[in-house]
Amino acid sequence: MKIESKIKNYSVEKIEKVLSKKEDILKNIKFRRVYFFIDENVFNIYKKSLKKIVKDDQYLIIPADETNKEYIKLADYYKWLIDEEFMRTDILITIGGGILQDISGFIASTLYRGIKWIFIPTTLLSQADSCIGSKTSINFKGNKNLIGSFYPPDRIFIDPAFCHTLSDEYFNSGIGEIIKFHLLSDMKGYEKLKDYIFSKDLKNEDRLFEMIISTLKIKKSYFDEDEFDTGRRNLLNYGHCFGHALESASNYAICHGEAVLLGMAFADLLSLKRKILSQEVYDEFQKIYYNHYPDFNIKEISSGQIIKYLKKDKKRIGKYLTMVISKGVGNFEKLDDIKDSEIKNIYRRFISDYLQRVD
Amino acid sequence: MKIESKIKNYSVEKIEKVLSKKEDILKNIKFRRVYFFIDENVFNIYKKSLKKIVKDDQYLIIPADETNKEYIKLADYYKWLIDEEFMRTDILITIGGGILQDISGFIASTLYRGIKWIFIPTTLLSQADSCIGSKTSINFKGNKNLIGSFYPPDRIFIDPAFCHTLSDEYFNSGIGEIIKFHLLSDMKGYEKLKDYIFSKDLKNEDRLFEMIISTLKIKKSYFDEDEFDTGRRNLLNYGHCFGHALESASNYAICHGEAVLLGMAFADLLSLKRKILSQEVYDEFQKIYYNHYPDFNIKEISSGQIIKYLKKDKKRIGKYLTMVISKGVGNFEKLDDIKDSEIKNIYRRFISDYLQRVD
Repeated sequence: MKIESKIKNYSVEKIEKVLSKKEDILKNIKFRRVYFFIDENVFNIYKKSLKKIVKDDQYLIIPADETNKEYIKLADYYKWLIDEEFMRTDILITIGGGILQDISGFIASTLYRGIKWIFIPTTLLSQADSCIGSKTSINFKGNKNLIGSFYPPDRIFIDPAFCHTLSDEYFNSGIGEIIKFHLLSDMKGYEKLKDYIFSKDLKNEDRLFEMIISTLKIKKSYFDEDEFDTGRRNLLNYGHCFGHALESASNYAICHGEAVLLGMAFADLLSLKRKILSQEVYDEFQKIYYNHYPDFNIKEISSGQIIKYLKKDKKRIGKYLTMVISKGVGNFEKLDDIKDSEIKNIYRRFISDYLQRVD
Repeated sequence: MKIESKIKNYSVEKIEKVLSKKEDILKNIKFRRVYFFIDENVFNIYKKSLKKIVKDDQYLIIPADETNKEYIKLADYYKWLIDEEFMRTDILITIGGGILQDISGFIASTLYRGIKWIFIPTTLLSQADSCIGSKTSINFKGNKNLIGSFYPPDRIFIDPAFCHTLSDEYFNSGIGEIIKFHLLSDMKGYEKLKDYIFSKDLKNEDRLFEMIISTLKIKKSYFDEDEFDTGRRNLLNYGHCFGHALESASNYAICHGEAVLLGMAFADLLSLKRKILSQEVYDEFQKIYYNHYPDFNIKEISSGQIIKYLKKDKKRIGKYLTMVISKGVGNFEKLDDIKDSEIKNIYRRFISDYLQRVD
């Protein structure tokens, strides 16, 4: 899969047993030295192969923790690269999920105003969603993704086998975004989604890879003519307005894709209340989300906290709150007229529905 | 002057008495609120007009100090904008020189992944050089410009009258870059430069504006097909390799353009020693630089310190040091084979020449 970008063109390739294919990863690139950013979990699980790969190179192990993608914290990673004499002719390879991607991407776009960068996503979320589209996102004083840049990796390699070592919550997090994108596509994509979601083995590598590529293609169709996110690409934030607020308010107690799932459910409830979505469609969507809901103590989070973070949403354009809502499969809209009181009412009902489901 | 950029197209306009033309600055832009970043010196000098302009808006006064464009320090400015509820539909106006531009530009490119930004350069250096080309540069732990992005302002307004309130060193700093660009152009540009440099009133507004536009045009010709600085644009670093090292080693005791002047003189000495530049041309260039040399205690800086910072030059591509050198007017080359010992030898001679001149 080739992707054109105003920054630079790049590619996504499937590669099996990727951690033993260093030559393939680097083929036809000129470089002086290789540096690695590796997710701590991934390093512990795949230590044996990874130690072989990095033996002549510099590498840094980074825990995939939201606090590590804070603006201030990034100074440590810049410092490491500079101290280790990283040069413009060198190459950074990132092995990890979305948090490692965000850290690496922001640094890759800004160190020396741009360096060579290869990304090997190891979570389902980063394979099926974040790896393309060239966005990088950095937190600022606990506020999610307020800072960022547009900078794609030069190459992305996908090995669906990583799903077997993901925790349930990380797997569900990826499923959350796979659901979102297929709801944003069309009836054909929606049927494909239902076939997959209600099938038995979600981790069958071939089927999973098919869903990953299908998701990436839908995403690409949304940013192809709007890379810098000034119009249609906005709709990809379905589930993200409430989702981000929930992530921030819970201090990242749940994974991103899980928060997005709840965010879609919340947005659907708003659509239902405004009679934009029928009860029937609403119920069908709920069935798709349901099995992938996170189990966490939502009662600890007040509507006041949610509203506080919704006010910091970078997509807001006026004095009211913003949310992307669904009018049905492939039919979405960004609302900019939501009052605090509407959020409060819906949040009350949302909590009671959620508690019934996860009980 | 219209400039096309991969990020966004933008314009440079002359505007007299710019600080009383708020409506013109903002005409035909949709926005919610205006926020200002204003250089402390400029604010003190033009307090009366500025207080009128900013009366209904948020503004932040920032001293034009290199330490304020440190990566860590920028967190304060992001925080101010976020705390003051800056939104994507708002607009940031920067009034100041290159340091204010770098701070604002990096923040404008990364806050919410890009905001609307207008720049009113108030130093000769920022009017004649840095305002176009879309580079933003941030220091990292005392190392100059290691971090940065590509992001132009939406609009740039030039009022040459600001030159009358510039200190000599700031004026000379701009002259330094005006010299550099005309040396990088052709014989016609070189003759124009000599006419101007050896004329009486360098601050005549019409002549100065003509030189500003001439400089911007030369610069544009260098980045038109190389916005992201992968080839020809590199040559604009003439004077900057040694210049940046001198700035860092002296803890920014001299202005940027003055350091670039000394950097050109140093690079020319290297060309002379390598017999790439004739004694005659070398002497002629020296005459152009001479009146604009800064007066500072260069003996305090050792060749070891210079080499330490040259090693951190982001343009290096191999194990040796890098420098852009002159082979004559409009004829430049980037060398990547410079050894520490060559720098040491030339630096000894450079110091003795410099001391003779400024004595």
